Amino acid sequence: MGGDGAPDVPVAAALEAVAARPDALRVMLVGERRAVEAALARCGGVGTPGVAVCDAEGILPEGGHPATLMRRLPRNSIRQAARLVAAGDADAAVSMGHTGACLVAATWEMGLLPGVERPAAAVTFGFAPDMTFLDAGPNPDPTPDQMVQFARLGLAYAATVFGIPTPRVALLSNGREPGKGNRLAQAAFRRLEASGLPFIGNVEGLDLVHRPADVVVTDGFTGNAVLKAVEGVAGHLAGLLTGVAGGGGDLARAAAEIARVADTTQTGAPIAFLGVDGLFVPGHGRSDAAAIARTLWRTAEMVRSGFVDRLRSGLAPAPCGEEAAP
Amino acid sequence: MGGDGAPDVPVAAALEAVAARPDALRVMLVGERRAVEAALARCGGVGTPGVAVCDAEGILPEGGHPATLMRRLPRNSIRQAARLVAAGDADAAVSMGHTGACLVAATWEMGLLPGVERPAAAVTFGFAPDMTFLDAGPNPDPTPDQMVQFARLGLAYAATVFGIPTPRVALLSNGREPGKGNRLAQAAFRRLEASGLPFIGNVEGLDLVHRPADVVVTDGFTGNAVLKAVEGVAGHLAGLLTGVAGGGGDLARAAAEIARVADTTQTGAPIAFLGVDGLFVPGHGRSDAAAIARTLWRTAEMVRSGFVDRLRSGLAPAPCGEEAAP
Repeated sequence: MGGDGAPDVPVAAALEAVAARPDALRVMLVGERRAVEAALARCGGVGTPGVAVCDAEGILPEGGHPATLMRRLPRNSIRQAARLVAAGDADAAVSMGHTGACLVAATWEMGLLPGVERPAAAVTFGFAPDMTFLDAGPNPDPTPDQMVQFARLGLAYAATVFGIPTPRVALLSNGREPGKGNRLAQAAFRRLEASGLPFIGNVEGLDLVHRPADVVVTDGFTGNAVLKAVEGVAGHLAGLLTGVAGGGGDLARAAAEIARVADTTQTGAPIAFLGVDGLFVPGHGRSDAAAIARTLWRTAEMVRSGFVDRLRSGLAPAPCGEEAAP
Repeated sequence: MGGDGAPDVPVAAALEAVAARPDALRVMLVGERRAVEAALARCGGVGTPGVAVCDAEGILPEGGHPATLMRRLPRNSIRQAARLVAAGDADAAVSMGHTGACLVAATWEMGLLPGVERPAAAVTFGFAPDMTFLDAGPNPDPTPDQMVQFARLGLAYAATVFGIPTPRVALLSNGREPGKGNRLAQAAFRRLEASGLPFIGNVEGLDLVHRPADVVVTDGFTGNAVLKAVEGVAGHLAGLLTGVAGGGGDLARAAAEIARVADTTQTGAPIAFLGVDGLFVPGHGRSDAAAIARTLWRTAEMVRSGFVDRLRSGLAPAPCGEEAAP
């Protein structure tokens, strides 16, 4: 039921995803049964093998505090999807709905990995598709220790999902020198240095496009502002090229790269919530059916890679929570 | 003596600026006399009317705390330039040197406007050249009251320099709803609402490219990260188009706009320090001679507009400092 074109767009995406890989993907459509079945009928998908409907009740309104909404509408589609994963009836949940509500539902139903105090939203940028950037929003005021936990989660993600053998982590700051930062970043820098993690120091905004590390950690307020500003500017620039770069050659390649950077399904869409004990992949509300289908395939690949188990074992050798309290 | 190509690049820029507008601009080159005169000779500018040399001693090293450097090298070129303005011997100072050192020199020599606790760095973006964005760096941990002061300075700047009759100010946050933000942004939101200023609420990073307000206020840590990330990505995208968009028509216009957004002299270069009692215009260390010449012309126009007097009187009707302490 989530995202701008629900329920038709996600239903069409599910049919597209299953049709392309019928042996590798089955989808449960979680939502108000009548609405979902009507959308299935409109999309010509009634009776498609590998596509089932799971009932949910209530549609989350725009705005409002996620936890309050979760209590008021306890059987909403986002929470029901998280429940299916927690119960072992599904391998992963995907939603284009309210990101904050997705995070609350995932945390409440799946719980957190050992040593993790707060889950983080990890994202990638179109210009650096295997650089893990977190936190992108849920934690606007983390503690320095929580930022060390983000680093640990990001490193485990980079190793397991991107297959980077010895990933390294950097801290986003307002300059590269060790003394730079606001009070939070300065404190996080000291904790990261003392953490034993492969920490390479500060990077600044200008460095991001050059992929300065495998993982870049920041607080959710700064992370959100940076991510959305980049997304807005890249989208603006891509719009300038629309319709003027139809030919081939170098120009078409440049235009395609700009479009890729501006693509909200590649830049800005969270790749996963890190720290929850299960796989919940939130997506952009503006995603079209093709983008949602790609997200479903990617999620299926993460399931096959044993993502959560590998994340859990990636955390095991040096558990979070070993740092001293502030 | 500041910037990547000093002293030759700024000297060439001064000659270019004066040659283009000999009736409207005179330049004092502040630096170690022998080095500056040698650069003048190399540029064929010895004896040019309207170009003088003012002696300074010592070159600031890379890194180090600005205030410490100012004390250790009290007659460095940046501080000497600020002194000339404070003494009334120059109308404005321009430097491509260490931005932090420029801010300290301007504050120490010129003092602050009434009711201003901390000067801020205001910048513009190439995609919104008359939108004032501050703070871009010097204040990574401002108080909520100082952010209200930034708003007041930005509004006065927008009114006097950009000639916007009734400018409005917004707060950068991680969402548009009033409750969004980290603790600092939430507190600043409440102070801005109570300030009597024309405050239109929160904007998010995605909105910036659409110029959501005449003035956008944020803390210097977030401002710096956003500004530099946008600069980096725009530069990356502009680089993709280099050499593939030589023709005319819509494509060339799109490429030119992308280059403009990526131009560090339009996106990212501080337009002025707001809050100091005088005009000090810092520039990008990477500026070439043409960019520095443009900065000199723009500064001369700010002087003719009575910038500082107008900023001072723009602050007068509702003086800063009227808010309660936190």
